[in-house]
Amino acid sequence: MPQRTPVHPALQRLRERLDRVNREILARVQERGELVLEVAALKDELGLDSYDPRREAEMVRELTADPEGPFGAEDLAAIFRALFTASLDLERRSRHPAPAAKAPEPEPETRPHPKIQAIGRR
Amino acid sequence: MPQRTPVHPALQRLRERLDRVNREILARVQERGELVLEVAALKDELGLDSYDPRREAEMVRELTADPEGPFGAEDLAAIFRALFTASLDLERRSRHPAPAAKAPEPEPETRPHPKIQAIGRR
Repeated sequence: MPQRTPVHPALQRLRERLDRVNREILARVQERGELVLEVAALKDELGLDSYDPRREAEMVRELTADPEGPFGAEDLAAIFRALFTASLDLERRSRHPAPAAKAPEPEPETRPHPKIQAIGRR
Repeated sequence: MPQRTPVHPALQRLRERLDRVNREILARVQERGELVLEVAALKDELGLDSYDPRREAEMVRELTADPEGPFGAEDLAAIFRALFTASLDLERRSRHPAPAAKAPEPEPETRPHPKIQAIGRR
């Protein structure tokens, strides 16, 4: 195992606080995932579509309207878009579990926002 | 203003819970931003570099090692990479405030994950 450079104690303490906040964010993100699965089940029951771009745009607008902290609106938009993209993937996986064979192309009207589509391409 | 389709009450309740979790995540993200600024100030004092890719990889590994929730390791890695990319930007802005002229292109080795990069493109 490679030798580590010793970390300054004050930096070490800040890193421990960052790790704690990371774990808190992780817990909230997973809590959000549970809600996303509930939404997916309910939408299935109601026969509704997965993706509502207006609702997503509204959430981004609300969350970035008044940053009140070091991260600005653009930073926050990037972070939440990553969260919403992962949430949409999760919702889709729960409604249309991947078959053994290769998955069919999505219907044009259910295609995600062009930005989100770009993420799916590898 | 366009007329809105009424939302099913159960879906409305779930959306309110999602909004609450979003705001909790936002508060923790901004708290993380404050810590990032403290780290930046301390690193300036100690004459240390901004970016420690080993530390970032370690955080991603720890946060995705045991998902314990609906989001899998890949989802979580994408979400946290977006958070860490925004954090690095914040740290850099605080240490090297942008000049009046246009900002330089980021160094190739500090470019965000390809998934995240795709989000930035419009």
